[in-house]
Amino acid sequence: MKKTIAIQGIQGSNHHKVAQAYFGDEVQLDECLSFDALVHSLMHGKCNYAIMALENTIAGSIIPNYALIDANNIHINGEYYLNIHHHLMALPNQTIQDITEVCSHPMALLQCKEFFKQYPQIKLVEDVDTAAVAQKIEQQQLKGIAAIATKTAAELFNLEILSGEIQTIKTNATRFVILQKEKPTNGIDQIDKASLRFELDHKRGSLATILNVMSDCKLNLTKIQSLPIIETPWKYAFFVDVTFESYENYTKAISILEIMTTSLKVLGTYKNQRNS
Amino acid sequence: MKKTIAIQGIQGSNHHKVAQAYFGDEVQLDECLSFDALVHSLMHGKCNYAIMALENTIAGSIIPNYALIDANNIHINGEYYLNIHHHLMALPNQTIQDITEVCSHPMALLQCKEFFKQYPQIKLVEDVDTAAVAQKIEQQQLKGIAAIATKTAAELFNLEILSGEIQTIKTNATRFVILQKEKPTNGIDQIDKASLRFELDHKRGSLATILNVMSDCKLNLTKIQSLPIIETPWKYAFFVDVTFESYENYTKAISILEIMTTSLKVLGTYKNQRNS
Repeated sequence: MKKTIAIQGIQGSNHHKVAQAYFGDEVQLDECLSFDALVHSLMHGKCNYAIMALENTIAGSIIPNYALIDANNIHINGEYYLNIHHHLMALPNQTIQDITEVCSHPMALLQCKEFFKQYPQIKLVEDVDTAAVAQKIEQQQLKGIAAIATKTAAELFNLEILSGEIQTIKTNATRFVILQKEKPTNGIDQIDKASLRFELDHKRGSLATILNVMSDCKLNLTKIQSLPIIETPWKYAFFVDVTFESYENYTKAISILEIMTTSLKVLGTYKNQRNS
Repeated sequence: MKKTIAIQGIQGSNHHKVAQAYFGDEVQLDECLSFDALVHSLMHGKCNYAIMALENTIAGSIIPNYALIDANNIHINGEYYLNIHHHLMALPNQTIQDITEVCSHPMALLQCKEFFKQYPQIKLVEDVDTAAVAQKIEQQQLKGIAAIATKTAAELFNLEILSGEIQTIKTNATRFVILQKEKPTNGIDQIDKASLRFELDHKRGSLATILNVMSDCKLNLTKIQSLPIIETPWKYAFFVDVTFESYENYTKAISILEIMTTSLKVLGTYKNQRNS
């Protein structure tokens, strides 16, 4: 039986690209038009895995997505880095001067903001998905409106690329995570990275002490992000990613962190994709 | 002579609120319709100070704004925390069912996303400023379009509030910073917080060592954020905020960090507004 993979967006979106790269072509897609819908699909057993963008080099961490993973106790089972390429596309036989409105996902609009400075007449409109706009332009034969989407979307929906590679930063890698509802049962030899969340009191040196433990246990920090906890002044939550060579060292660190932090949660243990 | 304060947005915006709270009413406003324009105003001497939103509890850090401060070598001279209240407003004598489009700043749309789930017929459109949309609705007498903005904006532009306090998280504090071009000359007794940026090689324990130094010098960490440096794989930049009681301890820490980190930059030293 084919696996069902929930993606944010439709066929031709960047999430679809990640699904293909990670799981191959032999999958069923569950196309979700928001990250909330994506999580809903996963929690209600409508898919085996869900793919979610988690951070990129321009906007940093997508904090609301961290909150979704945390609140629903979802597990991270893997990661994938994709270089994002944004192309401006519209119905054939139009020039960029004919375009008055560009609709796309907020993150795509943000990542192409510099490009549109030279076209002040173009209105930027948020939509739920990059590829869904391309589809809508074809279905409704919308003139004067352009989408920002992938080359695949242009091909799928018979649009013409007006300008290619319009993203501000040309090496715009986005990190996606592969999510599942149940705790993954990856073999220990497949695991060399972990995502953690913990809380600390606002006491001088509390984070330094934790990082010392990690360092002593030979964990490498690849990401750290503090977030104030809204309901609890002077308490902070930290999202931390670590890589390691020995799983034994990792479990040793975790057993110490469980004592030294509050509400320690392992969001997932998986294979580091950056080295593979 | 009145001071000129550059704000993102126009009269009635949240940046305007911060300008009033921080500098009082006796100021001249330079209304900028983007953060880029705000920085341009500051760099070209069109204002004495600029006010910029830097982080909030939903979206986390506004990473592109950190990049603007860093790239232009601007100085942080102070900070201000504002609880953001978003209200939905339109021309009088309309109900929420008459509304087909809501235009606002991307951050305001994000912060009210939950509210609009119950109104799928409403299209969310990005605009440059919360208050500017309210102004446009009045000037052009636009029916069917609503703004998300402050109560002040509703009063200024004669709009009716259709629904109040529509932000998802009710205690939605946003941190603003006061920026200036020249290095501030705050008295030492006025300084108990600093914003730093530094780079570290991806070597195990490198961040722990730095935090140990900070802790030994009695600095309290209030924010930490790692960012990969795009052009340099395996090198990380860190944005860190610290508070302290003794300025002498702070300068001691800085002199050690200058040796132990790469490209240490003090983005600003100022008065911690959270305690005052």
